[in-house]
Amino acid sequence: MKPTTPYYAVIFTSKRTEGDSGYNKMATQMMHLAQQQKGFIGVESAREKIGITVSYWESLVAIQNWKANTAHLVAQEKGKTNWYASYHVRICKVEREYQFEL
Amino acid sequence: MKPTTPYYAVIFTSKRTEGDSGYNKMATQMMHLAQQQKGFIGVESAREKIGITVSYWESLVAIQNWKANTAHLVAQEKGKTNWYASYHVRICKVEREYQFEL
Repeated sequence: MKPTTPYYAVIFTSKRTEGDSGYNKMATQMMHLAQQQKGFIGVESAREKIGITVSYWESLVAIQNWKANTAHLVAQEKGKTNWYASYHVRICKVEREYQFEL
Repeated sequence: MKPTTPYYAVIFTSKRTEGDSGYNKMATQMMHLAQQQKGFIGVESAREKIGITVSYWESLVAIQNWKANTAHLVAQEKGKTNWYASYHVRICKVEREYQFEL
């Protein structure tokens, strides 16, 4: 995952409700579906007290198209009715980056 | 944490080396120190296979000042020699955001 800046990031932070209720299955499906979208660059995710998922995209249009994807709309709706106590979405332009590796 | 866009986010993703070696103590110290910096807005963190820490700042200058903070420079150096197998830092402008709460 080494695109050139600027590109875009969606920071999705969330608190889950209790229990699975199909969440993990849908999360895996959405992860696969996102990867098939035009303009998708990559995704990283970790959950402890809160979950943080950051997805990377070539353009704002690619993000808009993913948000409007029909299967994703169904997942977003179930997110609000079943899976999330709260979430926060931030659309960001990645302006600079650097890396370290041992 | 409800600033007005645009503000800035630093997405720090990392893989840890084995063992603690003082990492958790330093991470807690740096979390407290960051919160005292001018222009600091907030921070969110989760670790599973990878760690994701996102800190939020009022300006790029606030981010530069935090990066150059003396105690933080010591921590950054130990990060490279002791604690991280790899990391990736992305400096981002938060352009839009929305929230959901049950």
